Amino acid sequence: MTYCVGIEVNDGLVFAADTRTSASFDDVRTYRKMHVFEFPGDRVFVVMSAGNLATTQATLSRIQRDLDDPQCSRSLRSFRHLFEAAEYVGEQLVASQAVLRDEPSNNGVNVQSTLILGGQIAGERPGLYMIYPLGNCIASSPETPYLQIGESKYGKPILDRILRRETPLEDAARTALVSLESTIRSNLSVGLPVDLALLRNGELKLGQQMRLESDSPVYADIQDSWSRKLEAAVRTLPRFPWEPALAAGDETPASLPNMPPRRVAAQRDPGDAQGQQ
Amino acid sequence: MTYCVGIEVNDGLVFAADTRTSASFDDVRTYRKMHVFEFPGDRVFVVMSAGNLATTQATLSRIQRDLDDPQCSRSLRSFRHLFEAAEYVGEQLVASQAVLRDEPSNNGVNVQSTLILGGQIAGERPGLYMIYPLGNCIASSPETPYLQIGESKYGKPILDRILRRETPLEDAARTALVSLESTIRSNLSVGLPVDLALLRNGELKLGQQMRLESDSPVYADIQDSWSRKLEAAVRTLPRFPWEPALAAGDETPASLPNMPPRRVAAQRDPGDAQGQQ
Repeated sequence: MTYCVGIEVNDGLVFAADTRTSASFDDVRTYRKMHVFEFPGDRVFVVMSAGNLATTQATLSRIQRDLDDPQCSRSLRSFRHLFEAAEYVGEQLVASQAVLRDEPSNNGVNVQSTLILGGQIAGERPGLYMIYPLGNCIASSPETPYLQIGESKYGKPILDRILRRETPLEDAARTALVSLESTIRSNLSVGLPVDLALLRNGELKLGQQMRLESDSPVYADIQDSWSRKLEAAVRTLPRFPWEPALAAGDETPASLPNMPPRRVAAQRDPGDAQGQQ
Repeated sequence: MTYCVGIEVNDGLVFAADTRTSASFDDVRTYRKMHVFEFPGDRVFVVMSAGNLATTQATLSRIQRDLDDPQCSRSLRSFRHLFEAAEYVGEQLVASQAVLRDEPSNNGVNVQSTLILGGQIAGERPGLYMIYPLGNCIASSPETPYLQIGESKYGKPILDRILRRETPLEDAARTALVSLESTIRSNLSVGLPVDLALLRNGELKLGQQMRLESDSPVYADIQDSWSRKLEAAVRTLPRFPWEPALAAGDETPASLPNMPPRRVAAQRDPGDAQGQQ
């Protein structure tokens, strides 16, 4: 179903998106969901999408057409405020949905899309907006400095616990990757590769932009490391009243459990003995 | 919406359930969702429920009526196999839903419930079943040794990462509490207090049964401790290629961040400057 998350901290913005697009179990493809409109030194916009892929692509085509047309007075290049850009993108989104809805028999297909638009225009602070299928939009708040679209529930707890406006930008990026990794692990409709982009406050061009596969060192390290840290953290949580106290050596979370090797020999079939009785 | 989780490990069973019941935002109450039928030395059953409260209560009333009736040949006391008990509970569930559906105008209310039934009958190993509104049921598997009902997505990633058949019983209980705490933190329809029960393999009576409030030492310690461990874990994840390496003192997860005190003075209103621009 997609999962994209945008984070707004004092240092700047983080964008992370998966790339799995599926109409159903037997129709799964990889499509970019993070789209960058960069005018270095003047303005940067990042759009992430969830929902109907056709609607999203039509929206982006309209935005690009207006950018390429020298006669067009309203385009991402012309606005002086980020909220005006958000309203404009909302208008393009509504126009794309309306065209598709004209089809007499759309078989109950949902043509709606939801977008995240983030970026910075020179002279303003960065901002992050969620644009609804209706075309209206909301900004992220200092109290909840992130926005999610798509399959958001699996990855929400870690964002709620960790993110504050003061969180350093790279820590926010790590949190976003953990949030995505938890979702990918627990839901089939969200998958690798993952697109990640960082926009530092005032730089007016993307600081970092990368595509992470399962064997990318950044992602693989986070995957391994996070699982081990979680297992160690669970084992060292406070004891129940009836349990003996942890042995002295076990208390420090520094003793991470040994991870099984990445490639293991095939195991014997464990058999059916543990099934329904 | 409820969140209950049952876990089956080699050492026994863990049951954890919230108690928030809501028809809507303005109709929120606290109701027990974990129901124990204990016949020490012979058999123990634990039923947890999600869905329509009236259906659940009717189901439990039927089960209790059959237990109290000496003439009744089929009750939780009579079955020799756990799957027979699960099928019986499914029949009671279907009967409770059918009665309610006879009402001509039920205003689109969903009268379905889903149950988790776990327990052990003397002479068998313990078992854990999910009973669907249709009355059929599935058992937990060694590969996925847990079952969830209700608002399950927030708390699923931690269960997927941590639980194996070999996980010690108390570690599984801690994992269940973390799973519930993550859900309570991120979703309004799941709330404290939390009921927790442990059934050790072969004991044929509940080992531990407790109700945890936000100020219960067990729950409060896990809440504080888990947040700190997560923040430390995020901060010590591998660095991105462009970042400087962690300072030597920062690498050990043993240096947990200081938690803010439980009671803080009221803060100045942060103002509206960070809102939509």
